[in-house]
Amino acid sequence: MAKKNKFPKNAHRGFKGEIFEVWQWPQKMYDGTKETFEMLTRPDTAQVIPVIDDKILILSQKQPDSPKAFYSLAGGRREKDESALNGAKRELLEETGYVARDWQLFKKVSPSGKIVWMIHTYIARDCIYWQPPRLDAGEKITVKLISFDEFLALVDEPTFYEPELVNYMLRAKADKKIYKKFHKLLFKK
Amino acid sequence: MAKKNKFPKNAHRGFKGEIFEVWQWPQKMYDGTKETFEMLTRPDTAQVIPVIDDKILILSQKQPDSPKAFYSLAGGRREKDESALNGAKRELLEETGYVARDWQLFKKVSPSGKIVWMIHTYIARDCIYWQPPRLDAGEKITVKLISFDEFLALVDEPTFYEPELVNYMLRAKADKKIYKKFHKLLFKK
Repeated sequence: MAKKNKFPKNAHRGFKGEIFEVWQWPQKMYDGTKETFEMLTRPDTAQVIPVIDDKILILSQKQPDSPKAFYSLAGGRREKDESALNGAKRELLEETGYVARDWQLFKKVSPSGKIVWMIHTYIARDCIYWQPPRLDAGEKITVKLISFDEFLALVDEPTFYEPELVNYMLRAKADKKIYKKFHKLLFKK
Repeated sequence: MAKKNKFPKNAHRGFKGEIFEVWQWPQKMYDGTKETFEMLTRPDTAQVIPVIDDKILILSQKQPDSPKAFYSLAGGRREKDESALNGAKRELLEETGYVARDWQLFKKVSPSGKIVWMIHTYIARDCIYWQPPRLDAGEKITVKLISFDEFLALVDEPTFYEPELVNYMLRAKADKKIYKKFHKLLFKK
């Protein structure tokens, strides 16, 4: 479904930028008056927790408009006419050089009430190194293999900005059952 | 500091909407090429955890563009030339009818890398009922007093969309020390 179908029929696009579109419509309020309501669209994000043996591949990256390095999953913007899964596969290969056969959707969240935007998080098991990464001109990325417990410890790393995932990681740290469930989901054991 | 000062000097505003502004600038990439970078501004949010005796005041609200009720803190958009604290005080009074003397900033987060936007969360202790709420034409709000443990249980309530706060609440649920610290911060005991 096109993103504009998420808005009322009388919505119009006020602006189309590089990433964001701004949509507006007259919204009937509870007292019968009307106000201009406004929402955005942005391309969906597809990201990956890549699993290699008993380790997880984590990225440390920099971007040209900010000097600070940050930890992240592999991933990026889903391209037009690309499925979320194919976006995840493409980003994993471009950013890390790895491919995988065994993919599973882990989480799908819509992080903002005012932005039509989905983050699809996949688990990619049994990743194998395929070719050197091909980074965009706007990316500086290094990769690191970490254990499951090191991965869960990222909840205390302020530059790992994944509030929804961190939520689940905190639950896994606090509750043995969820810990085991998450471990099994990632490593199949 | 004005929000535009967060962008490079050669940034220009491409669009000014009701809530969002879109800013763009030519960004030099790591290989020397240039690409158009884009970021947004939106008014900061000021919100409140209102404390009355040993209870917390929680809101259940509806908005005209969505039929689903959701739980939330009191709060809303900070107005132009209004401090975050004054915004929090105004929203608490408008939405609940309560005032308080004892205010403390609890958290200040910037939830999006692509949006210049701060959420200021305050604790308001010893709230007293002052006058009936004065709701906007776009608000339907009921309030409810809940215990500290009921408040922490909101981590399992999908409509309570406060990912950063929920992270802290999960930590408080899992760790007796953080539980006591948070309790003391709210109730001074």
